[in-house]
Amino acid sequence: MKKTFKTLVAGAALAAIAGSAAAQVVGKMEDQIRWRQSAYHTMAWSMARIKANVEGTYNKEQVIEAANVIQAIANSKMGALYQPGSDKGKGWKETRLKHEFFTDKEGVGKVAAAFGKEANEMAKVAATGDAAAVKAQFGKLGEACKGCHDKFRQED
Amino acid sequence: MKKTFKTLVAGAALAAIAGSAAAQVVGKMEDQIRWRQSAYHTMAWSMARIKANVEGTYNKEQVIEAANVIQAIANSKMGALYQPGSDKGKGWKETRLKHEFFTDKEGVGKVAAAFGKEANEMAKVAATGDAAAVKAQFGKLGEACKGCHDKFRQED
Repeated sequence: MKKTFKTLVAGAALAAIAGSAAAQVVGKMEDQIRWRQSAYHTMAWSMARIKANVEGTYNKEQVIEAANVIQAIANSKMGALYQPGSDKGKGWKETRLKHEFFTDKEGVGKVAAAFGKEANEMAKVAATGDAAAVKAQFGKLGEACKGCHDKFRQED
Repeated sequence: MKKTFKTLVAGAALAAIAGSAAAQVVGKMEDQIRWRQSAYHTMAWSMARIKANVEGTYNKEQVIEAANVIQAIANSKMGALYQPGSDKGKGWKETRLKHEFFTDKEGVGKVAAAFGKEANEMAKVAATGDAAAVKAQFGKLGEACKGCHDKFRQED
């Protein structure tokens, strides 16, 4: 493995809380923010793929691939990448996380649960190949994304 | 949805080749490169999580989550994000893609197939919860990553 990958993985592994059953890789603050931004952009690409399919020629496999990516990321406990203080700092770019993320635990729990629910449902509906149902679920999933953006993400 | 997400999704959808059964979202060159970089960093985070588990306290669920992310991305036909000319340009940062990626189709096919195989196997092994088998498969998957880096990625 070349440098960047090795460095990233090694740095992150070092940062994991060794010996704890709940050990999570949290990385340095800039890693956390960059990983978050990377995961959201990977999901944005996947959302764009689903959108192109429901608005254009429908390709079942493409929608399944994209929905599976969103589902896997949605279930990957990204909460570990939101350590206190990570509403300030730069990953690929300055984070837009609002400080309220750390004070409104109930609100965070709600938007996270809604997103997980709709992402899992999206993968389920995608597997059926029913384009109309996928279009409807895409709308619900987009609303779940928006639910978090509206509450916890600063405007550009 | 707020601006960035809407813009990203809309821009990408427009860029899809409408009317083709193989329509793929390719986006603008900078989108392609940013999405690629985002997907690889999301996988790097997931690799770091698996590494932390096989080297520290093993948590079956964490490894499954991480392996599922890698598997979903590995199966998402990222090839669409490698349009001719995308060995030059900037996403989050300058791409390190070598020009050889576009001339050595056989080599690309080989590393892509190897990566897909090991990523699928990783998810399968993760599901068993067998820490020793996961450690061995993590090594193989890392080698598959390296296979592509060595051939098609420029050194920093």
